[in-house]
Amino acid sequence: MDLLSLLGFILGIGFIIVSILLGEAPDGSTVLMPEQLQGFFDLPSIMIVLGGTIAALMISFPLKSFAKIPKHLKIIFAPKKYNPQSYIEQIVFFAKEARINGLLALEDKLNNTQDKFLKSSLLLVVDSVEPEKVKALLNKELEYLEERHAQDMAFYNKASEYAPAFGMTGTLIGLINLLANMSDTEALAKNMSVSLVTTFYGVILANLIFKPIANKLKVRHEEEYLCKMIISEGVQAIQDGDNPTFIQEKLTRLLPSYSLKGELKNTGK
Amino acid sequence: MDLLSLLGFILGIGFIIVSILLGEAPDGSTVLMPEQLQGFFDLPSIMIVLGGTIAALMISFPLKSFAKIPKHLKIIFAPKKYNPQSYIEQIVFFAKEARINGLLALEDKLNNTQDKFLKSSLLLVVDSVEPEKVKALLNKELEYLEERHAQDMAFYNKASEYAPAFGMTGTLIGLINLLANMSDTEALAKNMSVSLVTTFYGVILANLIFKPIANKLKVRHEEEYLCKMIISEGVQAIQDGDNPTFIQEKLTRLLPSYSLKGELKNTGK
Amino acid sequence: MDLLSLLGFILGIGFIIVSILLGEAPDGSTVLMPEQLQGFFDLPSIMIVLGGTIAALMISFPLKSFAKIPKHLKIIFAPKKYNPQSYIEQIVFFAKEARINGLLALEDKLNNTQDKFLKSSLLLVVDSVEPEKVKALLNKELEYLEERHAQDMAFYNKASEYAPAFGMTGTLIGLINLLANMSDTEALAKNMSVSLVTTFYGVILANLIFKPIANKLKVRHEEEYLCKMIISEGVQAIQDGDNPTFIQEKLTRLLPSYSLKGELKNTGK
Amino acid sequence: MDLLSLLGFILGIGFIIVSILLGEAPDGSTVLMPEQLQGFFDLPSIMIVLGGTIAALMISFPLKSFAKIPKHLKIIFAPKKYNPQSYIEQIVFFAKEARINGLLALEDKLNNTQDKFLKSSLLLVVDSVEPEKVKALLNKELEYLEERHAQDMAFYNKASEYAPAFGMTGTLIGLINLLANMSDTEALAKNMSVSLVTTFYGVILANLIFKPIANKLKVRHEEEYLCKMIISEGVQAIQDGDNPTFIQEKLTRLLPSYSLKGELKNTGK
Amino acid sequence: MDLLSLLGFILGIGFIIVSILLGEAPDGSTVLMPEQLQGFFDLPSIMIVLGGTIAALMISFPLKSFAKIPKHLKIIFAPKKYNPQSYIEQIVFFAKEARINGLLALEDKLNNTQDKFLKSSLLLVVDSVEPEKVKALLNKELEYLEERHAQDMAFYNKASEYAPAFGMTGTLIGLINLLANMSDTEALAKNMSVSLVTTFYGVILANLIFKPIANKLKVRHEEEYLCKMIISEGVQAIQDGDNPTFIQEKLTRLLPSYSLKGELKNTGK
Repeated sequence: MDLLSLLGFILGIGFIIVSILLGEAPDGSTVLMPEQLQGFFDLPSIMIVLGGTIAALMISFPLKSFAKIPKHLKIIFAPKKYNPQSYIEQIVFFAKEARINGLLALEDKLNNTQDKFLKSSLLLVVDSVEPEKVKALLNKELEYLEERHAQDMAFYNKASEYAPAFGMTGTLIGLINLLANMSDTEALAKNMSVSLVTTFYGVILANLIFKPIANKLKVRHEEEYLCKMIISEGVQAIQDGDNPTFIQEKLTRLLPSYSLKGELKNTGK
Repeated sequence: MDLLSLLGFILGIGFIIVSILLGEAPDGSTVLMPEQLQGFFDLPSIMIVLGGTIAALMISFPLKSFAKIPKHLKIIFAPKKYNPQSYIEQIVFFAKEARINGLLALEDKLNNTQDKFLKSSLLLVVDSVEPEKVKALLNKELEYLEERHAQDMAFYNKASEYAPAFGMTGTLIGLINLLANMSDTEALAKNMSVSLVTTFYGVILANLIFKPIANKLKVRHEEEYLCKMIISEGVQAIQDGDNPTFIQEKLTRLLPSYSLKGELKNTGK
Repeated sequence: MDLLSLLGFILGIGFIIVSILLGEAPDGSTVLMPEQLQGFFDLPSIMIVLGGTIAALMISFPLKSFAKIPKHLKIIFAPKKYNPQSYIEQIVFFAKEARINGLLALEDKLNNTQDKFLKSSLLLVVDSVEPEKVKALLNKELEYLEERHAQDMAFYNKASEYAPAFGMTGTLIGLINLLANMSDTEALAKNMSVSLVTTFYGVILANLIFKPIANKLKVRHEEEYLCKMIISEGVQAIQDGDNPTFIQEKLTRLLPSYSLKGELKNTGK
Repeated sequence: MDLLSLLGFILGIGFIIVSILLGEAPDGSTVLMPEQLQGFFDLPSIMIVLGGTIAALMISFPLKSFAKIPKHLKIIFAPKKYNPQSYIEQIVFFAKEARINGLLALEDKLNNTQDKFLKSSLLLVVDSVEPEKVKALLNKELEYLEERHAQDMAFYNKASEYAPAFGMTGTLIGLINLLANMSDTEALAKNMSVSLVTTFYGVILANLIFKPIANKLKVRHEEEYLCKMIISEGVQAIQDGDNPTFIQEKLTRLLPSYSLKGELKNTGK
Repeated sequence: MDLLSLLGFILGIGFIIVSILLGEAPDGSTVLMPEQLQGFFDLPSIMIVLGGTIAALMISFPLKSFAKIPKHLKIIFAPKKYNPQSYIEQIVFFAKEARINGLLALEDKLNNTQDKFLKSSLLLVVDSVEPEKVKALLNKELEYLEERHAQDMAFYNKASEYAPAFGMTGTLIGLINLLANMSDTEALAKNMSVSLVTTFYGVILANLIFKPIANKLKVRHEEEYLCKMIISEGVQAIQDGDNPTFIQEKLTRLLPSYSLKGELKNTGK
C-alpha cells in the first residue's frame, strides 16, 4: 500500500477545505465558518467541469483507456514493488548456474522464477535463439513498453488540460448569463461567486488529481523500466558467457544507489 | 461505428446546454430557463471565431489538408478495426507455409490476403529482394507513415490554437466598440455579455472539437502503427527463415495484452 | 499561384472588419455601423506593436533573415509545384537507361533535366563516387536542408511571440497613462478602448499573419523534402543497380497517396 | 560553499521585502512603511499554497524523492568541485604509466585515486574486460546518470507548476467567499488584498525557489557529466593504447575553455 | 560591428518612449506630453523586476555564466565574421597540397592558418591519427560545442521567464498594499498606475532584451557550427584522399546559398 499517495490526496483536500472554512470574526480573529463550505458545492458546476472533461476524453481516447483507470489507480495506491537488487541477485545466480552446468540447465531452475519477463527472456537463451535476435527482441519489447506507458500517461495529461478549460467554460457561461439578465444588481456578487466555483473545480481537478496521477505513473514506469532493463542486459550477458562477477559489477553500476564500498576484487576473467 | 466519440460529442454539447439553461428561481430553487439559451447564439460571434479560424487555417495549410477532413471524421467515427492478434496469426500461417513449401509458394496464398501492406511486403520476399533492402524499405515506409500522420494531426492542433485566439479577438472587438460608444450605460452589461460569447465559442471549439479530434487521430495512428510494425517484423522474420513458434513468441511480446499463460514450450529451433 | 493563402488572408481580414462594423440599432436589429471602424485604426498603436516586433526581430535575427521575406512570401503565394510522382518517373527512366547503356550513358540524358538536385546527385553516380560517400553526402545535404528551413520558420515563430507581447506593452502604456492622469473620468471608457486596440493588433498579427506563414513554410518544406528524399533514395538505388520495377515500387511506397491497385507483378529480379 | 546561491536567495527575499515596505508619504516622498509588511504574512495563505503544493508532490512522487531534498540542497549550497582539468591530468598520468609498465601496473597506482568512477572504470581495463564491453558499460552508465538526474530535476519543475496553481486556488477561494458573503462592502478591498496574497506566494515560490533550484541542479549535472565523460573517453583511450599526448589533446578539446596556446607539437605517434 | 542589433535596440526603446509620450490634446489632436514619461520611471519597480530577476539567476546559474555576459554582448554587437566560403577555399587548397606533396607537407602550410580549429584538426591528420579516431574526436567536439552554446542560451531564456514573473510580483505587491490601505480612494487610480509599471518593465525586459539576445546567440551559433562542420567534413575528406574537386562540390552543397550555376564538370576521379 502506497500511503504517500493516499496521504497526499487527503492532505490536499484537507488544506483546501480548511482554507475555505477560515473566516474573520468581527473582532478580527480567525474562526472556522462552516457555512462558507456550501458556497463551494455547486452541482451544475461539477456537471460542466467533470462532464465536459469526461466528454472531451471520450472523443480523445478509446474505451480501453477508460477501462484501464482502475488498473492505474491500483498502480498508484497499491503498487507492485520493484526491487532491482533482487533481480541482479537472480541474474547472478543464473549466470553461475550457466557457467557450471551449461545454458540448458537453466530450464529446470526457471520453474521457481516468478517474474514472467525474466523467465521468458531466459527461455530464449535456453532455446538457443541467436544472440543478435535476443538483443533485437528485448530492445523492441522495452521500447514498446515505454511507448505504451507514455500512451497511458497521455490520458491523464490530456485530462489535466481539459479540466481547467471546462472550468473556464463554466465561468464564462455563468458570467454571460449574469450580464445578460442583470435585473437584480444585488445578487450580482453572489452569482459571480457561483460562476467562479467552476474555475476552482477545474484547477483542483487538474493539479490535485490528473497531473499528480500522470506523474506518479511516470515514476512507476521508471522503476519498472529499470528492472526490465537490468534483466535484459543480464540475460544478454549470460548468453555471452560473461563472468558472474563482471555481470554483477556491470548491473550494479546502473543502480541509483551505486557507490563503491572499498575496493573491487580482481574479477580475473 | 465508434459510439464513444459520438456519445462524447453529444454529452459534451448536452452538458454545456444544460449548464446554460440552469437558472435560479426567485425562491432559490434551480430551474431550467430556456430563454437564457438565446444569449449564447450570436451569429456575428460564430462568424469571427469560426471564420477567423478557417481563414488562418487556409493560410497555414494546403487545400489537400481540408480535403482530408471527411476522411478524418470517418477515422474518428467509423474507424477500421485493427486487430494485431489476427495479423500475428496470418504471419505465423505464412511462416509455416514458407517452411514447408518454400518462399515461392507464398504467392498463391497471398491472393486471399486482404491487407495491402501485408501482401505487398510479403511479395518483396517472394520476389527475392535482398533482406537488408526489404528491411530498409519497410522501415522507411513506417517512418513516413508516422510523418504523414503527424502532419494530419498538426491541422487540428493548429486549429485548437487559432480558435481561442479568434475568440479573444472577437471579445476584444466587442469591448473596444462598447467602450468607445458608451452612450448607453444601461446596455453595458448586456453588450459585455455578447462580447464574452466569442471567447466561449473559442474555448468550446478548441477543447470539445479540435483537441479531441487531434488526439483520437493520434490514438488511431498508434493502433495502425502497431499492426504495420508487427507485419514488418513478421515479414522480415519469414525471410530470415525463423521458426514459426519463435515468430509467434516474438510478435506476441509486442502486444499490450502480452502476458505469459503457463509455460512456454521449447521452440526447439 | 496559391489562391488559398490569398483567399485565407482576405477572408480573415474581411471577417474581422465585418465583425467590427456590426452594431445593434436602437430597434434591436443588427446593422453595419461604419463609424465604428475608426476606433480600430490607431496609428500610435500600430507603431508600438509593429515597430516593437520589428525592433525585437532586428536584435534576434541577422539582416539576411529580413532579406528572405520576399522569397518566403513568394513561397507562400506563388509556390513551386513539387510533384513527387514525376520525380519517380524520371528516376525510373534513368534507372532503365543505366541498365541498358551503363551509368556513364546517363550524362547525356541529364542535359535535359531541369531539377538541379536530381542532376547534381546523378552526376555523382556518373562520376563513380563510391556509394557510401554518395549516401553520406546526400543524407548530410537533406539534414542541412531541414536545419535551414527550420531556421527560416523560427523567424516567423519568434515574430508571433513578440507581436502579442508588444500588443500587451501598448495596452499597459495606455492604462498606466490613463490611470496616472485621470482628470477626466468621462473619457475613461474611450481611452480604455484605445488602449485595448494594441492588444487587438498583437493578437491579429500573430494569429492571422505570423503563425500561418510559419506553418505554410513548414508545409512547403515537407513537400520539397519528400521530393528530395525520393531523389536521394532513387539515385542510390540506381547506383546499386536495382531493378527499375523495384525502384518504382520502393519509391511509390513513400507517397502519401500510395495504395495498391490490383496485384503487383512479379518484378522478376 | 557556493555563496552565489545563498546571496541570490537573500537578495531576492530582500528586494521583495523592501518593495513591500516602500510607501508614499503624504508629501509625496518615498518612505519605508513597516506596517505594510503584516499584510503579506497570512498563515492560511501559506497553508494552502505550501500545503497544496506538498500534497500534490506527495501524489506525484515517491517518498525517496522527498528524502533527497537535503542532498539536493547540499548540491546547491555546498557543491562538490568538479575540475575537468585535474581529471585529464590523472588520465594522462595513467596513460603514461600503462605505456611504460603495462595495463596491469595501473592496479597499484589506483589505490591513491579518490574518484570512485575513475577507479572502477580503470579496474575494468586492468581486468582485461573486452574494449567493446567497457565502452557499452560506460555509455550505459553515463546515459543512466543523465536519466536519474533528469528525474531529480523533475521534482522541482513539477513543484514550480503546482505552486502558482495553488496560489491561484487560494485566491479563488478568497474571492468566492468574499463575493458570496458581501455583507460589508467596506471590507471588500481589504479582503481582496488578502486573497491576492496567495497568488503572490505561489509566484515567489515558483520563481525564487523551485525553478532556480531545478536549474542549478541541471548546471551541477552538466559539470559532473563533463568530468565523467572525460573519464569514460580517457579510460577507453588508455585501453586502446593511445599515445598520452594524443589523449591529452583529445580530452582538452572537450573543455569549454579550450583554446590553442601556440602550436601543437608533433605527437609522433 | 553588427549595426542591426544596436539599431533594433534603439528603435525598440524609441518606439516605446514615443508611445508613452503620445497624448490627446483637449481639441482631439495628438500631441507629445513629456510629463507622461515620469509615470514610467519608478525606481522601486526597477529594483523588484531587475533585482528579482538577477537574484533568481544567481540561484539558477554559476558565477561563470554571469562572467560570460560581456563576451555574449560582444558576440551580439561585434561578432566574428564566419565565412563558410573562405573555409571551403582553404580546405580545397590543403586538399590540393596534400595530393601533390603528401599529408606531411601540410604542416608547413598550416603556420599561416589563423583558424585554430582548422589548424588543430588538420594537425591530427598530419600526425597520422587513424581516420576513425579523427572522426570520433571531431564529432564529439562539435557535439560539445552545441551543448555548451545551448547552456549559454539557457541563461537568457531563463532570464526571459523570470523577468515577467517578477514584474507580476511587483504589481501584486502594489495591488495588495493598495487594497489593504485604501484610506484615500482618490489616489487609487494613480497607485494602480504605479503598480502596473512593474508588469510593463517585466514584459519589456523579456521581449526586447533577454529573448532577442538568446535568439541572436542561437543564430551566431548556427553560423559558427556550419563553418566548423565544413572544416570537420573537409579535414576527414582530405585524410580519405578525396579528389579536391569532389571535396569542393561536397562542401558547397552544405551552403545555404547553394545553387548550381551551369553544368558540373566531370570530376574524373
